[in-house]
Amino acid sequence: MAQLKPIEDRVLVKVLEAEEKTAGGIVLPDNAKEKPQRGRVVAVGNGKLLGDGKRQELSVKSGDEVIFGKYSGSDIKIDGDEFKVLRESDLLAKIG
Amino acid sequence: MAQLKPIEDRVLVKVLEAEEKTAGGIVLPDNAKEKPQRGRVVAVGNGKLLGDGKRQELSVKSGDEVIFGKYSGSDIKIDGDEFKVLRESDLLAKIG
Amino acid sequence: MAQLKPIEDRVLVKVLEAEEKTAGGIVLPDNAKEKPQRGRVVAVGNGKLLGDGKRQELSVKSGDEVIFGKYSGSDIKIDGDEFKVLRESDLLAKIG
Amino acid sequence: MAQLKPIEDRVLVKVLEAEEKTAGGIVLPDNAKEKPQRGRVVAVGNGKLLGDGKRQELSVKSGDEVIFGKYSGSDIKIDGDEFKVLRESDLLAKIG
Amino acid sequence: MAQLKPIEDRVLVKVLEAEEKTAGGIVLPDNAKEKPQRGRVVAVGNGKLLGDGKRQELSVKSGDEVIFGKYSGSDIKIDGDEFKVLRESDLLAKIG
Amino acid sequence: MAQLKPIEDRVLVKVLEAEEKTAGGIVLPDNAKEKPQRGRVVAVGNGKLLGDGKRQELSVKSGDEVIFGKYSGSDIKIDGDEFKVLRESDLLAKIG
Amino acid sequence: MAQLKPIEDRVLVKVLEAEEKTAGGIVLPDNAKEKPQRGRVVAVGNGKLLGDGKRQELSVKSGDEVIFGKYSGSDIKIDGDEFKVLRESDLLAKIG
Repeated sequence: MAQLKPIEDRVLVKVLEAEEKTAGGIVLPDNAKEKPQRGRVVAVGNGKLLGDGKRQELSVKSGDEVIFGKYSGSDIKIDGDEFKVLRESDLLAKIG
Repeated sequence: MAQLKPIEDRVLVKVLEAEEKTAGGIVLPDNAKEKPQRGRVVAVGNGKLLGDGKRQELSVKSGDEVIFGKYSGSDIKIDGDEFKVLRESDLLAKIG
Repeated sequence: MAQLKPIEDRVLVKVLEAEEKTAGGIVLPDNAKEKPQRGRVVAVGNGKLLGDGKRQELSVKSGDEVIFGKYSGSDIKIDGDEFKVLRESDLLAKIG
Repeated sequence: MAQLKPIEDRVLVKVLEAEEKTAGGIVLPDNAKEKPQRGRVVAVGNGKLLGDGKRQELSVKSGDEVIFGKYSGSDIKIDGDEFKVLRESDLLAKIG
Repeated sequence: MAQLKPIEDRVLVKVLEAEEKTAGGIVLPDNAKEKPQRGRVVAVGNGKLLGDGKRQELSVKSGDEVIFGKYSGSDIKIDGDEFKVLRESDLLAKIG
Repeated sequence: MAQLKPIEDRVLVKVLEAEEKTAGGIVLPDNAKEKPQRGRVVAVGNGKLLGDGKRQELSVKSGDEVIFGKYSGSDIKIDGDEFKVLRESDLLAKIG
Repeated sequence: MAQLKPIEDRVLVKVLEAEEKTAGGIVLPDNAKEKPQRGRVVAVGNGKLLGDGKRQELSVKSGDEVIFGKYSGSDIKIDGDEFKVLRESDLLAKIG
C-alpha cells in the first residue's frame, strides 16, 4: 500500500466500514447532513510549501484512524479495497 | 469522549439542548435566522499552522460552553449523544 | 450580560430600537437597501490571531453604541432582549 | 455630524446631488452602467489593521469631495440628509 | 481635467474612439469577445498600500495611451467627453 | 517530448491507460465520482514565484508516475499520444 | 509590433494557426475540452509587484512560442493579424 505517495498536504486513507462501531462507541450516521466517514491513514504527503521555502509537517501519520466528510477527496480502488486521497484540511478528527 | 482528536483549528463539541435556558438566562431561539445552538467543548485541535511554522493556540478549551450556528460543522453520534466537529471560527461565543 | 464572551473578532451587541432617534438625530431608515441597525456593545472578543502570534485589538469596546447591517451576524435572545453576535468588520460605525 | 465614527477603513460621506455640475464641469450621468455618485467625506475610520499591528492611513479626509458607485455601501439618514458608510476602496476618486 | 484624483490603484482614462486606428495600426475590434477599448491616462492614484505601509508605484502615468476591457471600471462624463475610472489591473497594455 | 516546457507550477503528463492495473494493483475506476487518471510526468515547470523572489521546487520530476483528476488541466495531443498540462496541486499522488 | 507594452504580468502573443503542426509534432486539437492554442510572445510586461516593492521577472520572453487556453485573455487585431493579451499564468507551456 506504500506505493502511493500523496502530493503536498494530501493523505491516502483506507475507507473503513461506516456502520461499524469504533472501540470508543463512535457511530458515524449514514443519514447525517455531511455524512462523516471513518478511515485509516496509509500514507501522507510531504506537506505544503510554507512562505520560507520549508514544508509544513502534517498532523496525522500512517496508522492514524480518522474521520472525514463522505464527499471529500477522490476515490481510488486498490486490490478491491476503497481508498480516498484527501487534503489534510478535509480531515475532521483523529480517533484515539 | 477523549478519543476523538480534532484536526488543526477544529473543536469537538457535545450538543446541548437548544431549548434549555442557561444559568444566565440565555435563550437560543429555534426560529432565529441562523439558529445558534449551545454545546460543551470536549476536545480541541492543535491549531492551524502559522506562517512561521508554529501552530496557533485556540481560544477555547475542553469544558467551555459555547454557542454556534446550527448548520455549522459536521454531526457525529457517540453512544447516543450528538456531537459536532466545528472550526473554531464557527464558534460565536463562550458562555460564562 | 457579561457571561457571553465572543470568539476572536466578534462582538456581542444589544439591539436598540431602530426607529428611535439618537441624540444626534441619526435615523436608520427601515426601508433602506441594507437596513442599518443600532445597538450597544456589551462584550468583545480577544481579537483575531495576527501573523506573529499576537491578537489584534478591537476598535470598539463595551458600552459603545454602534450601527450595523440588519442582516449581519447571529440573533440571540437573553431574558427577552435581542442581541447580535457580529464580527467587528460587520460594524459600520460607532456613534458619539 | 462628527458623532458617527466609521470603523476601520470606512468613511462617512454626505451624498450630494448627482445631477449638479461640479466646478470643474464633472457630470455623473444618472444612466451610466455603474452610476457613480458624488459626496463629501464627513468622517473617516482609523484604518485597517496592517500585518505589523499598525493601522493604515486612509487616503481621504473630512471635507474631501469624492465619487463612488451609487450601489456601494450602506445608506443612513441624519436630520433629513442622506449619508453613506463606504469602505475606502469603494471610492473611485477625489474631486479637486 | 486634473481635478479628479483617483483613489489607490485607480487611474482616470479619457476614452478614445474605438474604431480609430492607432499610429501603429492597432485595431480594437468592436465585436471581440472582451471588447478592448483605447484611452489616454489623465490622472493616476497614489497606489495601493503595501504590507510595509508604503504605497505601490503605478506602472502607467498621465499621458499614456492604454487599452482596457470595454466593460471594466466606471463611466464618468466631463464636459461632454467620456472617461473611465479603472483599477490599474484592468489595463491590458500601454501603446507606444 | 522535452520540447514542451510547462510554465510555473505546471507539469506535462503523458496520459496512461486508465483501465490498466499498475504493478501494485492500483485500479482507477472509470465510474468514480472524480475519475482519477494515471500518467507519467515528462516535463515540469520552474515553480511558482515565492514571496522572496525565489521559485518553489516542485515535488514531482520527469519519470514519476502520478494520478490526477480526469477533468483537471488541459489536453494536448503530441504525435498521436495524449498529454495533460496540469498544475502540481492538481496531482493527487505519486505511484511508487 | 513593439508598440504595445503589456501591464504587470501580462504578455502580448501573436496567435498562430491552431491546426498547424509544430516542428516537434505537437498538435493542439480544435475539439479539446479547453482548446489550447499556439502563439508567439511579442512583448511582456514588467511583472507584478512583489511584497517587497520589487517586480517579479516573467518566465517567458519575446520570441518564445507558447500554448494557452483558447478562451483566455483578450483578443486584439493589429494590421490584420490576431493577438492576445494574456496573464503569464494563463500560459500553459513554452514550446522548444
